[in-house]
Amino acid sequence: MSEGSVPNGTLTGTARVEAFSDGVMAIVITLLVLNLQVPEHEPGHLLRALGHIWPVYLAYLASFTTIGVVWMNHHTFFGRLRRIDHVLRWWNLMLLLGVSLVPFPTIVVADNLVHGSRRDAQVAVALYGIVGVAMTLPWAPMWRQLEKRPEMLVPGLGPDYARRERWRAWPGILVYTVTIGIGFLSPVTALVLYLLVSTFYGISTKGWSSPTGTDPDEE
Amino acid sequence: MSEGSVPNGTLTGTARVEAFSDGVMAIVITLLVLNLQVPEHEPGHLLRALGHIWPVYLAYLASFTTIGVVWMNHHTFFGRLRRIDHVLRWWNLMLLLGVSLVPFPTIVVADNLVHGSRRDAQVAVALYGIVGVAMTLPWAPMWRQLEKRPEMLVPGLGPDYARRERWRAWPGILVYTVTIGIGFLSPVTALVLYLLVSTFYGISTKGWSSPTGTDPDEE
Amino acid sequence: MSEGSVPNGTLTGTARVEAFSDGVMAIVITLLVLNLQVPEHEPGHLLRALGHIWPVYLAYLASFTTIGVVWMNHHTFFGRLRRIDHVLRWWNLMLLLGVSLVPFPTIVVADNLVHGSRRDAQVAVALYGIVGVAMTLPWAPMWRQLEKRPEMLVPGLGPDYARRERWRAWPGILVYTVTIGIGFLSPVTALVLYLLVSTFYGISTKGWSSPTGTDPDEE
Amino acid sequence: MSEGSVPNGTLTGTARVEAFSDGVMAIVITLLVLNLQVPEHEPGHLLRALGHIWPVYLAYLASFTTIGVVWMNHHTFFGRLRRIDHVLRWWNLMLLLGVSLVPFPTIVVADNLVHGSRRDAQVAVALYGIVGVAMTLPWAPMWRQLEKRPEMLVPGLGPDYARRERWRAWPGILVYTVTIGIGFLSPVTALVLYLLVSTFYGISTKGWSSPTGTDPDEE
Repeated sequence: MSEGSVPNGTLTGTARVEAFSDGVMAIVITLLVLNLQVPEHEPGHLLRALGHIWPVYLAYLASFTTIGVVWMNHHTFFGRLRRIDHVLRWWNLMLLLGVSLVPFPTIVVADNLVHGSRRDAQVAVALYGIVGVAMTLPWAPMWRQLEKRPEMLVPGLGPDYARRERWRAWPGILVYTVTIGIGFLSPVTALVLYLLVSTFYGISTKGWSSPTGTDPDEE
Repeated sequence: MSEGSVPNGTLTGTARVEAFSDGVMAIVITLLVLNLQVPEHEPGHLLRALGHIWPVYLAYLASFTTIGVVWMNHHTFFGRLRRIDHVLRWWNLMLLLGVSLVPFPTIVVADNLVHGSRRDAQVAVALYGIVGVAMTLPWAPMWRQLEKRPEMLVPGLGPDYARRERWRAWPGILVYTVTIGIGFLSPVTALVLYLLVSTFYGISTKGWSSPTGTDPDEE
Repeated sequence: MSEGSVPNGTLTGTARVEAFSDGVMAIVITLLVLNLQVPEHEPGHLLRALGHIWPVYLAYLASFTTIGVVWMNHHTFFGRLRRIDHVLRWWNLMLLLGVSLVPFPTIVVADNLVHGSRRDAQVAVALYGIVGVAMTLPWAPMWRQLEKRPEMLVPGLGPDYARRERWRAWPGILVYTVTIGIGFLSPVTALVLYLLVSTFYGISTKGWSSPTGTDPDEE
Repeated sequence: MSEGSVPNGTLTGTARVEAFSDGVMAIVITLLVLNLQVPEHEPGHLLRALGHIWPVYLAYLASFTTIGVVWMNHHTFFGRLRRIDHVLRWWNLMLLLGVSLVPFPTIVVADNLVHGSRRDAQVAVALYGIVGVAMTLPWAPMWRQLEKRPEMLVPGLGPDYARRERWRAWPGILVYTVTIGIGFLSPVTALVLYLLVSTFYGISTKGWSSPTGTDPDEE
């Protein structure tokens, strides 16, 4: 593979990284629909067949809102950046890896709530939680990198801001880990929790007030 | 999930929201082609097999033009905006949820017009109509939010404009609801109606004249 | 469906139309890979199985280069535009309809060259040609609309330019129509012709010199 | 196909070429998840079934990081360009052809490590290597074209820079070729090598220092 000569320390603009990330997230969120398949059914029993696969819809909603909320957070994160270095670009790719895996546990969960044994449903929910952790963890090193190189932040934001934000990755990681445990008691409850948590995150998104009192997104 | 600190009241630019929405709609409109599958057939009978699945083409056309017209409306809507708040971003995500579901009812309708019983075809058309409503409804709260915060509109447009536009979501909702009913009499007619309605919307798109007499899109 | 109030005569910027079109074409060109499927085979016979499906690769290459060349032409076309009206937006959508259909005839052709009877292969090549015409025809009304409203062109280009360019859609339409005929004599030859024609178009792309002597793309 | 009139020598901006390339690469990297399929299994044996397909995950990771690193290189490459000519556009399309093929050898490798005979696994790894070469080779003519027309480079970079960079395509080509050979000894080792090589490229990416001492990406 040919290699460019950007040293690690070099900063570049964020436009293409955002465009690529938007692309990946837009595709993942849309590919989820391929998991919705017309179930086999006797003639005249389409309605019942459509009702039978209700966990598929629930899993679809949970994954759609989760990816949607990740996108909103990504949007906010990059709204804070002026420039980006290679380390951040690499962790962003790891974040996209986690996000782009989502359709896999989504269909595994849905299938095994419909057809599987209880034990399979537990395994499926755990797999979902692991992917959930995988798309939450990269936020921590991303914020830490901003703490180390605050010159990537927009003017008015400094290392203190990045340090404070870094802690906010942990509730998400915690939620996914706890929900894996809940999934062993009740897989459906765990799935509903995933849906509620991401909806809550998405609707509230108030967060910490910005350090300078004025929001850097404000034009 | 890590959270940014944009308070609900904070306005941000629209560029990335448009890019993400464009991405989702471009992918959905293109994924429809995966519904076109080579039907099983005896050697030498490809032509007949291709003809046999005509409802698949009809459903493809109806869904393609519908999503295309939603995209045009989205384009127009965001052409009126300078900035966007969190509520609008959330409803936009709900709109994308409706749009990204389209391939599912499309294939269900097509399959059940080809293979299903009459009752299944009615159920399928109703499912299509429900998704149609799901991608029409979000326009109402989107306009209402603009009415409440007209500072998101481009200069020259105010709350009166948003209020007037809000009513325009309802014909679409009505059409989809009525067509669900028609689908119980004749599923094919309902599908043709979906196609005609979106073609009509797409070609005419004259709409109300803009309030100031000059169109805000005009540069 | 909610409707914006852009009258037909209103011109808007081209950025989002280009982004949406780029999205659709990028997706279609990439979805083609889903047609490449591991053929069923006896253990130890993967190599033979991969060789057996050579028409699939040929069809892949023909469709990939065709869409790539359409994208290049689209790029050139929109490089000539300052603004766009509703009629042009609509024909652009029809062009994208033709383009996004390509994976369907691609797999039909490939499958029927591998497994089908001679008659099926002819039908498949004809289907391919029809889609080829569908993505060539819209260029004619697109140029005609520019002829009618030359104010959409970049400064220095006028109706004469658009009229001259309009004629260039016809060789493509002709090629696809003639190749449908050739497909009845030899389906593989027709497929190779599709590949050669689009490669030729893509590599040469010299075209008519621009009317003013200086190329409007030149910055 | 209608043709624009850009002569080969004409230079245009790079924005749309980057957007289209970003789109294709974002889609390919995301489509890989479709290769992750719930394996058939007895009720209660989901965990074992998920474990059984470990080569699928390995192949997923190898391909994801490979495409991610190609994207980073593409990002760097285009960061060096001010303008682009038709030859470069065409080779860029050939590069995208190589990239968009990746899901095919990925699934062939994964499937044949899981189910195939040793001989099939060797064939599959060779196929993977061939596609690897296909997405490495185009970098050489792309740099050569910059050497011939250095006016496409950003100010401060000249033909010497392009000549030096051109040689950097060859290690990648060599790695893929050598790994094809290793695949005949141990297919899994070859796959792990693909993963390690792209991870190494992606994390280090120090590369040659830029010729002028200051990095052209630096704003």
